[in-house]
Amino acid sequence: MDFFFYPSSVAVFGSFREGAIAREILRNIVEGGFDGKIIPINPRGGSVKVAGESFEIRPKLEEPVDTAIIAVPARAVPPLMDEVGPLVKGAVVISAGFSEVGNEELERELVGRAGKYGVRVIGPNCAGIFGLHGKFFGSFEVRVKPGGLALISQSGAFGGAALAMGNDEGIGFSAFVSYGNAADLNESDFLEYFADDPNTKVIALYIEGVRDGRRFLEALRYASSRKPVIVLKAGKSESGARAAASHTGSLAGSYDIYRAAFRQAGAVEVGEMEELFDAAKAFEMYGKAGKRVAIITNSGGPGVLATDRLERLGLQMAKLSGETVDELRSFLPPQCSVGNPIDLIADANYERYRRTIETVCRDENVDSLLVICVPPIFVPGEDVARAVIDARCGKPLVVNFMAGELVRGGVRLLEKAGIKNFPTPERAARAIHWLSLR
Amino acid sequence: MDFFFYPSSVAVFGSFREGAIAREILRNIVEGGFDGKIIPINPRGGSVKVAGESFEIRPKLEEPVDTAIIAVPARAVPPLMDEVGPLVKGAVVISAGFSEVGNEELERELVGRAGKYGVRVIGPNCAGIFGLHGKFFGSFEVRVKPGGLALISQSGAFGGAALAMGNDEGIGFSAFVSYGNAADLNESDFLEYFADDPNTKVIALYIEGVRDGRRFLEALRYASSRKPVIVLKAGKSESGARAAASHTGSLAGSYDIYRAAFRQAGAVEVGEMEELFDAAKAFEMYGKAGKRVAIITNSGGPGVLATDRLERLGLQMAKLSGETVDELRSFLPPQCSVGNPIDLIADANYERYRRTIETVCRDENVDSLLVICVPPIFVPGEDVARAVIDARCGKPLVVNFMAGELVRGGVRLLEKAGIKNFPTPERAARAIHWLSLR
Repeated sequence: MDFFFYPSSVAVFGSFREGAIAREILRNIVEGGFDGKIIPINPRGGSVKVAGESFEIRPKLEEPVDTAIIAVPARAVPPLMDEVGPLVKGAVVISAGFSEVGNEELERELVGRAGKYGVRVIGPNCAGIFGLHGKFFGSFEVRVKPGGLALISQSGAFGGAALAMGNDEGIGFSAFVSYGNAADLNESDFLEYFADDPNTKVIALYIEGVRDGRRFLEALRYASSRKPVIVLKAGKSESGARAAASHTGSLAGSYDIYRAAFRQAGAVEVGEMEELFDAAKAFEMYGKAGKRVAIITNSGGPGVLATDRLERLGLQMAKLSGETVDELRSFLPPQCSVGNPIDLIADANYERYRRTIETVCRDENVDSLLVICVPPIFVPGEDVARAVIDARCGKPLVVNFMAGELVRGGVRLLEKAGIKNFPTPERAARAIHWLSLR
Repeated sequence: MDFFFYPSSVAVFGSFREGAIAREILRNIVEGGFDGKIIPINPRGGSVKVAGESFEIRPKLEEPVDTAIIAVPARAVPPLMDEVGPLVKGAVVISAGFSEVGNEELERELVGRAGKYGVRVIGPNCAGIFGLHGKFFGSFEVRVKPGGLALISQSGAFGGAALAMGNDEGIGFSAFVSYGNAADLNESDFLEYFADDPNTKVIALYIEGVRDGRRFLEALRYASSRKPVIVLKAGKSESGARAAASHTGSLAGSYDIYRAAFRQAGAVEVGEMEELFDAAKAFEMYGKAGKRVAIITNSGGPGVLATDRLERLGLQMAKLSGETVDELRSFLPPQCSVGNPIDLIADANYERYRRTIETVCRDENVDSLLVICVPPIFVPGEDVARAVIDARCGKPLVVNFMAGELVRGGVRLLEKAGIKNFPTPERAARAIHWLSLR
């Protein structure tokens, strides 16, 4: 499927009038810096200018391209397959109006004709795809930053919202695919593909339901054996399952069966949308983490909240070795607590944070570190961020810098260094929990 | 306690050098627009300029003021009480170095001397207080916007972080009090006070432990009978309780007893920091909400996620009346789903949202509404925001606009109209859940 996510040439079919979907996709491809050939196609011809670049609109495709992005009226899609079939390897069908509104026949025709030419189809009724490391933004959704997360979404709108929120959360993406009605390629195909994609470090999957449970379990098991797979299942409750059936036509099936399958396959199931981001952030940084956690904080309260959450999630507060405690006592002011949480108190500066992190990190009883920083009054948050960045520590280290504007500078520094921030103590604790499930 | 939260004159004791705590507090008071008398006091005299305003520093207090804010070294505090006792009604003691580091004796002396003059004490070892509707920012913490939430925090740092994050979350505050060691006034006193404060619509309380359980239960019951009280209890787990003991010296006690007390008193207990904000936002808007919820969305997936969460929390998906369904069918495009969730599909505009909200709101089977909007492709998010604002609906209505930058304009419009946004479907669902507990 490299022709989808790393194409060297693409054709976009549809209307290129102001505001039309095909034009928005073309604009995204051009603005995203795609460096292969781009051919806009519409029977009426003409020209279109997006992002300062002018394109001649060809009336039809007359040369081979890797991928066709198709946003023409539904009934025009199957005939188009006969036209482009001999020239393309893959087709992303954005157009709606197929099985999701009862037109099963039209969808079968689309897949049948594509199959004749060996063309693989994503969609129909989908939001398109991104291949970030191929600099290919083949969707009208908001562009995101490159990174390690491949997002596979059965719901286009969920996917679009997740991309935009991912930008806010500092998540880097390797790919995005909205697979809509899954007439040809489905979640299992993408799981297998991204399992082997070297630019993808972690896979996140939003599903309402799958059709072939056995194949899904196999694909999920294979992908989970290669890298972390995060799953958000919608339609878990009775009413939710009914809603899913009317949305994607999914027979959501018994949630118990899904849950057992996720566990059996070694996937990491999250309970809600925000957790999907948090787990993705954690796994973009680390492959896994052990269960014995040390908390380092400059404020008692948030340390207690993190402790509560860790213990509730089945993690353990690491018991620091006598050596570690002695070493901490040797350089920390006497008011600091060297239990766990280790409270560096309000005036903790660069040096105090850095030395503490390094000392604790060397302790064999500690598997992972949770570093909390509330806005220091007389110490710039940037200093604490630098301490976290500079500290020599080879163990998973999750940070919770709060709050808001007061730590924004520090959070920005951390992000530049590839350290993602979790905005509350509990979300940071949960991040370690996801990591410990691998 | 109006002299604390609506003072007409204040004196600030401490060092006014650049970076000193007393100077930061003075700056906050001046920049916050306090319109009463402000007297900086330091034996060395001199003058200080903050926020463009110059003040003569008096060597001692020589006239009556409502409140003294004290940030002098710990051992100087009890003698200061004899000096100011006859002239002030309340003292906020920021200074640390009392019972929290084992100096119980010094703390008893402080309270004893203050008591002799009938002076009430907040602290010591606290971050200070805000009285937003008295335009009084008597703390070094970040200033916040005025509104209906009174935040009572045993942990100063938690309080400070919560204020800064509250700004980000669009929360409006009536007051903030960090009560530190609670040598004189404690959580129960503040609960009773804010229960009767006309500017406070909702009270949020962060506690690790309380000393007088019986009094606390009474105060909590009284406050909850007047307005919503949200409680976040830290130190719930075994390790968390140990951490709390070393932090605030609180004997956290059995969490089961606390939980029972919260329930018995009618308080709304939340599980973590983010939930405290979400519950506060919900209660700043509405006093309570019924359990039968209608979801209106322009995207299936998020509707399913909200449904799952609502059902999990024990809420019900409202069964729309035949009349409502007929009316919806009369103006909605046929592709829309008029089940519940009601799916207005991707091109839903101002009119479609507004009419749907009004129609659903009239249904007697519906107690509350959850309105979801993912970034519309060809409809500005601002239009959907305006529809929510303009719709005539007297029932609790909670919104989830996602995602990030794409809906920021709409979210800003909503906030101006007093409608707070919840960033994920699940957080919006949880907001209705908190409201239904009252």
